[in-house]
Amino acid sequence: MRVLGVDPGLIATGYGVVEEGPGGLRPLARGTVRPPRGAPLPERLAEIHRRLSEIVAEYQPDVVAVEEVYLARNTSSAMLTAQVLGVVKLVAEGRKLRSYAPREVKKWICGSGSAPKEQMIHMMEHLLSAKELGSDHAADALAVAVCALFDQRP
Amino acid sequence: MRVLGVDPGLIATGYGVVEEGPGGLRPLARGTVRPPRGAPLPERLAEIHRRLSEIVAEYQPDVVAVEEVYLARNTSSAMLTAQVLGVVKLVAEGRKLRSYAPREVKKWICGSGSAPKEQMIHMMEHLLSAKELGSDHAADALAVAVCALFDQRP
Repeated sequence: MRVLGVDPGLIATGYGVVEEGPGGLRPLARGTVRPPRGAPLPERLAEIHRRLSEIVAEYQPDVVAVEEVYLARNTSSAMLTAQVLGVVKLVAEGRKLRSYAPREVKKWICGSGSAPKEQMIHMMEHLLSAKELGSDHAADALAVAVCALFDQRP
Repeated sequence: MRVLGVDPGLIATGYGVVEEGPGGLRPLARGTVRPPRGAPLPERLAEIHRRLSEIVAEYQPDVVAVEEVYLARNTSSAMLTAQVLGVVKLVAEGRKLRSYAPREVKKWICGSGSAPKEQMIHMMEHLLSAKELGSDHAADALAVAVCALFDQRP
């Protein structure tokens, strides 16, 4: 089973591809899409769409897993992130889409929905046998991918 | 000048293409995309994206104009509509994108941001010399297209 995890954001969208096989979890790719900040919104959304479509074409994930956007203090920022999320979900066409709340991701990985960030990083490095998870956005994307793999286990 | 107006929605997305030339305003196309309701979200978003991309390819609008999504009483519905809006804005790549609040659309067309619906319909039928504007969603899309044409006048 192979999962593309995505942490959507207009300034930075993180992605991570993780595979679970007989040897355990294996990170295949991770990175951050940072569309040109001065560009008009359609061009920024198109850049995110294009890059994620390339990742999907290259790694052929069974599942696309995303962090769902919730209304926090900053409403207009959440509304923008929701627009990015729509573009991200578009690349899941023909595959399974799974959405998780940030608390769910923490719960699947650390056993607690309120686990602190350091504990998440520690667990993720351990689970992926990786010393370095990339940017915060890439790390969040890898975490949602691992969360979906755990959730999909029979 | 030719504008594609879009009224985004997951259940129904209205679109309308309006041109302004020496003879005044002319509606070139209008319709409503209704993705299969039982289909998974990525397939529904992809259907909206595909249909609007076809309209853009056929009519080559200079501007794509959308009704911006605002948080109303129903938050989760607004968050879903924002995801559709992201997909709609994607088709504006390489063109001008203009966003309007529902009140702005009414103001441009009726002169008042609180104009009742009947007045909007009456004005739109008059402006487009049309007896029938299509579904409510198509009519809203035509209205945002006309609003953008008025707004773009030198």
